[in-house]
Amino acid sequence: MKISTLFTKTSKNYPADEQAKNAQLLIRAGFIDKQIAGVYSFLPLGKMVLDNITNIIREDINAIGGNEISMTALQSKDPWLASGRWDNKVMDVWFKTQLTSGHDLGLAPTHEEPLTTMMRSFIASYKDLPACVYQFQTKFRNELRAKSGLLRGREFLMKDLYSFHTSQQDQEAYYQKVIEAYHKIFKKLGIGDITYLTFASGGSFSKFSHEFQTITLVGEDTVFMDKQKKIAINQEVMNDETLDHLGLKKSELQELQCAEVGNIFTLGTKYSEPLGLNFTDQDGQQKPVFMGSYGIGVSRLVGLLAEHFSDDKGLVWPDNIAPFKVYLVQLGDDRAILKECQEVYDSLNQKGVSVLWDDRDERPGVKFGDADLIGLPYRLVISQKTVENGKIEFKKRTSDKIELHDKKSLINTIAL
Amino acid sequence: MKISTLFTKTSKNYPADEQAKNAQLLIRAGFIDKQIAGVYSFLPLGKMVLDNITNIIREDINAIGGNEISMTALQSKDPWLASGRWDNKVMDVWFKTQLTSGHDLGLAPTHEEPLTTMMRSFIASYKDLPACVYQFQTKFRNELRAKSGLLRGREFLMKDLYSFHTSQQDQEAYYQKVIEAYHKIFKKLGIGDITYLTFASGGSFSKFSHEFQTITLVGEDTVFMDKQKKIAINQEVMNDETLDHLGLKKSELQELQCAEVGNIFTLGTKYSEPLGLNFTDQDGQQKPVFMGSYGIGVSRLVGLLAEHFSDDKGLVWPDNIAPFKVYLVQLGDDRAILKECQEVYDSLNQKGVSVLWDDRDERPGVKFGDADLIGLPYRLVISQKTVENGKIEFKKRTSDKIELHDKKSLINTIAL
Repeated sequence: MKISTLFTKTSKNYPADEQAKNAQLLIRAGFIDKQIAGVYSFLPLGKMVLDNITNIIREDINAIGGNEISMTALQSKDPWLASGRWDNKVMDVWFKTQLTSGHDLGLAPTHEEPLTTMMRSFIASYKDLPACVYQFQTKFRNELRAKSGLLRGREFLMKDLYSFHTSQQDQEAYYQKVIEAYHKIFKKLGIGDITYLTFASGGSFSKFSHEFQTITLVGEDTVFMDKQKKIAINQEVMNDETLDHLGLKKSELQELQCAEVGNIFTLGTKYSEPLGLNFTDQDGQQKPVFMGSYGIGVSRLVGLLAEHFSDDKGLVWPDNIAPFKVYLVQLGDDRAILKECQEVYDSLNQKGVSVLWDDRDERPGVKFGDADLIGLPYRLVISQKTVENGKIEFKKRTSDKIELHDKKSLINTIAL
Repeated sequence: MKISTLFTKTSKNYPADEQAKNAQLLIRAGFIDKQIAGVYSFLPLGKMVLDNITNIIREDINAIGGNEISMTALQSKDPWLASGRWDNKVMDVWFKTQLTSGHDLGLAPTHEEPLTTMMRSFIASYKDLPACVYQFQTKFRNELRAKSGLLRGREFLMKDLYSFHTSQQDQEAYYQKVIEAYHKIFKKLGIGDITYLTFASGGSFSKFSHEFQTITLVGEDTVFMDKQKKIAINQEVMNDETLDHLGLKKSELQELQCAEVGNIFTLGTKYSEPLGLNFTDQDGQQKPVFMGSYGIGVSRLVGLLAEHFSDDKGLVWPDNIAPFKVYLVQLGDDRAILKECQEVYDSLNQKGVSVLWDDRDERPGVKFGDADLIGLPYRLVISQKTVENGKIEFKKRTSDKIELHDKKSLINTIAL
C-alpha cells in the first residue's frame, strides 16, 4: 500500500487525558482514535493488527473444536433476570437501553445468559455433547473510570469461548486443552515468556479458576510469582490456605504488576440450572449441562503488545502482528528511483510480503521518524545514492545497523 | 467439517412470530438465532455466509481505494448535537444509554458524525484529499416494528463507505466509481439481474440520490421501473417532475416490490460545515470538505439471498456464498464406507474445496432432507452400493438429476 492512499497520518499530539503509553503511541501512530475514555475506533493500521491477532487466536481455538459464531449486543433481559444478573447491584457494569415500546434491553457485558438460553435449541441428549462455541465479539462495560488505554475498555473486543459437557470430568479435560491452546497463542503473540498461568478465585464448582497474567507496568492486577516453580497466584486468593494448597512459601514469591490477558473458568451448572439447559444422559436421566468459559481480551492485547513492543522512538511490531512487514522509504522522485521502488514493491508483494511504501513528498527525517513510530519490522531505503550503487539500504526496526544489499538477495531474505 | 463437530441442528420449528421466509428458513437450517425481533445472532453456517458476502464486498471497495476501519457502537452526543441529529424527533431510531457518571451516550445508528469529527485529525490540506474510508460495522436502529427477518433489523451489519473531496465535481466522479463497484458486487452475489439502480430523493446538494433496489416480495419499497430503458424510480420521488427529468412515461412503468440493498448519496457539506471539517485549498482558502456516503446492507443481503436462492425444500446457495461447497452424505459406517468418505473428504479439502461431512448415525431421509434444507451446491452420497460399484453419487442442489461418477473425475470436476 502506498502511504499516499492511506488516510491516517502520524501526529505529535495525543489527547491530553490519555495517560497510558499504549494509547499515546497508538493514537500518535494513527492506529486508533479515541471516541470517549475506554472507547476506541480502529483505524486501518490498527484494524490490521487486530485482525492479525484475531487470526492467530482463531487458528488455535478451531484446533480444539471451537465453532465460531457472532452473537448480538442487544440483550433481552429475561435470561439475565433468571440468572440473577440483571440487577445493577449484581452486575455493576451494565449499559441499558429501551425499545420504543418501553421494553428494557441490555448491552452485552458478556454472553453466558443468551448463549446458554440459545443452546436449549441444540442440546437435548448426551449425544449432542460436548459442544464448544466461541466468538470474537464486542463487550460493553460501564466502568466508572477507564484510564489504561486499550487495557480497560468500556467497549472492547473479546474472544469468548464456552464449552458444554455431560460431566465435570469432561469439562476438566477440556479445561486442560484450553490451557495448552492459550500457551500456544501467547507464545505466537510474542509474550509467552512474560505470561503466566495464575491461580485466581474459582466459583461453586472449583476452588480456583485460572488467569493468564502478563507482566506489564500498565497492568491493574497484582500477582505473586514463584519463578522457579512457574506458579503464580492472583492477590485475590493470596492467603495461607492457597500457599499450603500449592506448596509455596510466601518468602519465595515475587510481587509483580500484571494485566490479565486470558481466563479459564469452570462455570459448572451456574447458568444451565436457572436457564434450563438440560440433557438426557445415557441412563435416561435429565441433568443440567456442565459448562466452562474461556476468554481472551483481544483489543486489550493490542494495547498490551504496544506497551511491550515499543521503545522511545515508537512501536516495534513482531513480524506476525505488524500491519505490514516492510516500510519502504522512497527518497526523491527521479524516474530511476520510482522504477526501483515499483520493482521492489511488486517483487515483495508477489512473494506475499506486505509493504507500506512511503511515497510522500516529505523530508527524509519525517519519513525515518514515521518508520520508527509505526514500527514495521523492516525498513528499506531507495534513494539517488542507492540506485547509483545498485544497492538497497536495509535496517531492522530492532537494530541500529544499516546494511546495503543487492536487490535480489534482499528480496529473497525478507521473503523467507 | 464433520457435522458431528458442528453444534447446530436443523429443526422443523421456528419462532411463532417469525413471518418472513428468510428468517424461517435460516432459523430452521441453523444459520441464525433470534434474540429479539430484528436482532439475530449468526451461527457457524450463517457466519460463514456473512463472511463470504463481506469478502466479496471488501474486494471491490478496496479496489476503489477504500481504507477499512472499525468504529465504535458507543457514541458521544456532542457531534450529534452539532449536526442536529441527537434529537429523537430528528433521528427517530435512537437507542440511547448513559455512563455511570450520567453522561448520555448513543448507540450508533450510522457513523457520519463521529467519522466527520475524527477526520479533522487527518484532513488539513487539499493534499490530504480525496480520502475513502469504510467499515463493516453493526448499526443500531430502534425500529417500531421489525417483521421482515434479516431485511429490517434493529441490530444489523452494514458496509458503510464515506468519501471526502475538495469539490462536488470530484465527489461526483467517485460517485460513478461506486456505482460501477456496486454493479460488480451485486452481480457476484448472483442478484445482478434483479437489482436496479434507482432514483431516490437527494438532499441539499443533488436532486437525486441512488439506491440499488432488488426485486423481492419481502421488500418494503415500491419502485417504478422502465425495463427497456433500465431506469427505476423510488415511489418517494415518483412525480411528473421526475418523469419529465428522466424522459419517462408513467404508462410504460411497471410497479415492483423491492428491497434496498445499497445506497449512494451526495452529502455535500451537510456534516463537514457544522462539525468543522475544513481544508486549505490550493488558493490558500479554508473550505468545508465535500462528502459522499455509500451503504450496503450486509446482513440484509443474507436474508435477501435466502429469499431468492431457496425453494420448497430449503436454501439453494450459489457456490461463492455457500458455507461449504459440498454436502457429503455418509450412509452406513462399514470400514470401506468410512475409508471412502475420508479419502473423498481429504482429496477435496486438499484441492481447496470445503466439505460438510454428514457423519451422523441418522436415517438416509433425514440426511437428504438436511442436505436440501442447508442448500450446499453439491451433494455426494457414499454408501455400501456406491462403494461396491466403485462410483460416487452426485447431485447438484439446483437439479433433480442424480449422476454416478468415478472418484477421480468427480473430484476434479467439483474442484474446477
